[in-house]
Amino acid sequence: MRLATTLEELRAWRREAPPTLGFVPTMGALHEGHLDLARFARSQNAAVVASVFVNPLQFGEGEDLARYPRDLAGDREKLAATGVDLLFAPSTEEIYPQGFSTAIDVGAIGDDFEGALRPGHFRGVATVVGKLLHVVAPQRLYVGQKDAQQSAVLRKLVRDLAYDCSVTIVPTVRETDGLAMSSRNRYLDERERRAAPSLHRMLRRFVELLKAGEPFEIARTAAAALLEAPGELDYLACVDAESFTPLAALRANCFVIAAARFGRTRLLDNLWFPQ
Amino acid sequence: MRLATTLEELRAWRREAPPTLGFVPTMGALHEGHLDLARFARSQNAAVVASVFVNPLQFGEGEDLARYPRDLAGDREKLAATGVDLLFAPSTEEIYPQGFSTAIDVGAIGDDFEGALRPGHFRGVATVVGKLLHVVAPQRLYVGQKDAQQSAVLRKLVRDLAYDCSVTIVPTVRETDGLAMSSRNRYLDERERRAAPSLHRMLRRFVELLKAGEPFEIARTAAAALLEAPGELDYLACVDAESFTPLAALRANCFVIAAARFGRTRLLDNLWFPQ
Repeated sequence: MRLATTLEELRAWRREAPPTLGFVPTMGALHEGHLDLARFARSQNAAVVASVFVNPLQFGEGEDLARYPRDLAGDREKLAATGVDLLFAPSTEEIYPQGFSTAIDVGAIGDDFEGALRPGHFRGVATVVGKLLHVVAPQRLYVGQKDAQQSAVLRKLVRDLAYDCSVTIVPTVRETDGLAMSSRNRYLDERERRAAPSLHRMLRRFVELLKAGEPFEIARTAAAALLEAPGELDYLACVDAESFTPLAALRANCFVIAAARFGRTRLLDNLWFPQ
Repeated sequence: MRLATTLEELRAWRREAPPTLGFVPTMGALHEGHLDLARFARSQNAAVVASVFVNPLQFGEGEDLARYPRDLAGDREKLAATGVDLLFAPSTEEIYPQGFSTAIDVGAIGDDFEGALRPGHFRGVATVVGKLLHVVAPQRLYVGQKDAQQSAVLRKLVRDLAYDCSVTIVPTVRETDGLAMSSRNRYLDERERRAAPSLHRMLRRFVELLKAGEPFEIARTAAAALLEAPGELDYLACVDAESFTPLAALRANCFVIAAARFGRTRLLDNLWFPQ
């Protein structure tokens, strides 16, 4: 596996790259969910590029940018084992040199839920992925379902600005107890970790109740009661998978989404009904 | 010359296009300035794409979107004569389909001068050119010097987001009396048209006085007096060519810029000192 740290190195490699290229952007601290994205990309393309870049633009004031986990040596080893061809791991200055001032804003799709709790977050995500796509120039972009709103934002970015690539959403990988894999799970203390899988159980129960015909708000309240202390619910909702606008019932092409705080750590999870 | 009206047609053509491609985006109503861009692109590339798209995003409320001159048949003929290979002339719905909500904002470089007088204008310019670049995928983008701030905005767009193309600024083409060619010149009545070349004379005088060592504000006041009625000055300034921040003296890599209203028509002009 090649390592590139500058846009110029990446571009030089890209000029000689095979005709189908998959791209897996990450913030590092890789777990099985990320590796699954890489393996999936590997199975569909002649070459795969992964990036590891902790993007300051998508962290708000008081968020965990400084303490966000970093382990480039470990990430490199894991990605090489999945058959990734090139790892792009640029410095912050390489992506945002002195004077950088451009932003890509996808509009209302990034305003609610994570966007409401983290103002500017999705503008940061769209800006960095929009830029990386220009240099990697992949045919296929792979994103994890776990970050459902992010996946919707990136699909909208690609569609609205007519990037010449497709976006594949890869299903969430879970621990055996149902907890969605996340780089932030390592922040959880023992009690929080024990309670965290209740986020997933809550989502499944919410869907079960809706499918059984319970009224929406009653189902939501009943399901929310399953979230275990010290978990505190931020939201439990049903949204259109394209626009991320709230829905008052399950329907085709929707996400059932939830976020909860366990101590200082916010965890996300969702169920997707693509058909 | 091929005509494409959809992104899909353009993309299909692009896949078979020669290895070097120049791109000339326009809003139509073509004059010699535009054709010069096309001829210049023709001389440097194996193939040339021009676009004609009156971009609603870059017009403000109360601006001349509805009455902006349109002449696709005439434009088509003129472009074919310069050797353009493909003309892209999409509908508004093709570029901004229902639900479109993404914007590219280049930041402070678009806030002053034209940006201050036309809020959102440069966001509209950056968004449409940013999108067209994804579909045309040229090696070289050609823009006219006459719209100096626009040229700086587009250079910043390409640099900040690492688009894989260069930006060439092509010198302004002028009428024999010095008036910079512009699609808006046709709005001028006889008296306005007679006064309009004084905009260019004012710019030249300003530079002459600065070069002669006159203090900046004195030179500006003296030069501004050359603007003939009914012309009303919006601004006469000296700016850094990259950042478009105001300067208090001539120096390498700067634009001397001016805008004035002649009746309902605003005209721009500038002199460029690239070295």
